[in-house]
Amino acid sequence: MKILALCGSLRVRSLSAGLLRAARALAPAGVDFRIFDRPGQLPLFNPDLEGAAPETVLSLWNAVTWADAIVIASPEYAHGVTGTMKNTLDWLVGHVPFAYKPVAVFNPSYQSHHADEALKETLRTMAADLIPEACVRIPVIGSRVDPDDIAASADFAPAIRSALQAVVAHVQRQSAGLHDRAE
Amino acid sequence: MKILALCGSLRVRSLSAGLLRAARALAPAGVDFRIFDRPGQLPLFNPDLEGAAPETVLSLWNAVTWADAIVIASPEYAHGVTGTMKNTLDWLVGHVPFAYKPVAVFNPSYQSHHADEALKETLRTMAADLIPEACVRIPVIGSRVDPDDIAASADFAPAIRSALQAVVAHVQRQSAGLHDRAE
Repeated sequence: MKILALCGSLRVRSLSAGLLRAARALAPAGVDFRIFDRPGQLPLFNPDLEGAAPETVLSLWNAVTWADAIVIASPEYAHGVTGTMKNTLDWLVGHVPFAYKPVAVFNPSYQSHHADEALKETLRTMAADLIPEACVRIPVIGSRVDPDDIAASADFAPAIRSALQAVVAHVQRQSAGLHDRAE
Repeated sequence: MKILALCGSLRVRSLSAGLLRAARALAPAGVDFRIFDRPGQLPLFNPDLEGAAPETVLSLWNAVTWADAIVIASPEYAHGVTGTMKNTLDWLVGHVPFAYKPVAVFNPSYQSHHADEALKETLRTMAADLIPEACVRIPVIGSRVDPDDIAASADFAPAIRSALQAVVAHVQRQSAGLHDRAE
């Protein structure tokens, strides 16, 4: 099973990125978990360029096409989705394989909700298949934890494992359903 | 009086950009109305870079510092603020002169409201001084109007003029208030 992670922060010491690296470390056996590592190199979305998309955009599109499911983690900036996160999604609105893709949104904050809700509204509008049991608050922000230590933290590892299991179960159910219909 | 316009779309034939060019053409006498023309060249916001901001970011900061008021127009992408618009604002969250700056938000759509509301929530969080009489829906989107003809349109010119007059009146009131307090 293939999971692609999208991060909404470019900060080196980003806790959202740390959370996604932790998810990669904790991914169940058999899961190929990759983090899209070039969100900061995407150009700002321009509909005029969709027909001649630059190489970084193609690499995003290929990664999304490759994935069975997507996991998103992003901070909130000024009560809104970060420009980086939304820019990544703006490039995916017209990318057909994104539609109906299972998506989990990890909210890394203790209390922020504006960006989390706006992000889900956008994802629903993009016809994402949001996985309710995997859209969870994993409040690493505000803690003193080191971004690189999240996977080892007894506070967070169980929640991350549980969310990833929910993603895997959802994709398996979906895949079984498709198989049934094909028979 | 100096007004800076920020656009949330990079499309050449953007109706939001057309609306702002129309506002420039219709600006009252004595108003220096400039459109920030490099939103697409801003890097994606990275807090790690705020201390050593690239030249395009400095030009944005200088333009905001220069302005007495700001006018914003942006489309809505997938029920959200565009990445381009939010990225511009992300670079301004930490730019002190943005706080308390009078801001007008023109909603160029007939029916979109998600992005307009999210944008205003972010602007309030950034301590912008939103001008209620100048935050108006001017629904050029959906019309057949040419972006370059908006200023000449009897359908839109009165609403644009009225909104700009509200911006001017607000800044004048504010400036008179400051003058009173200084005496």
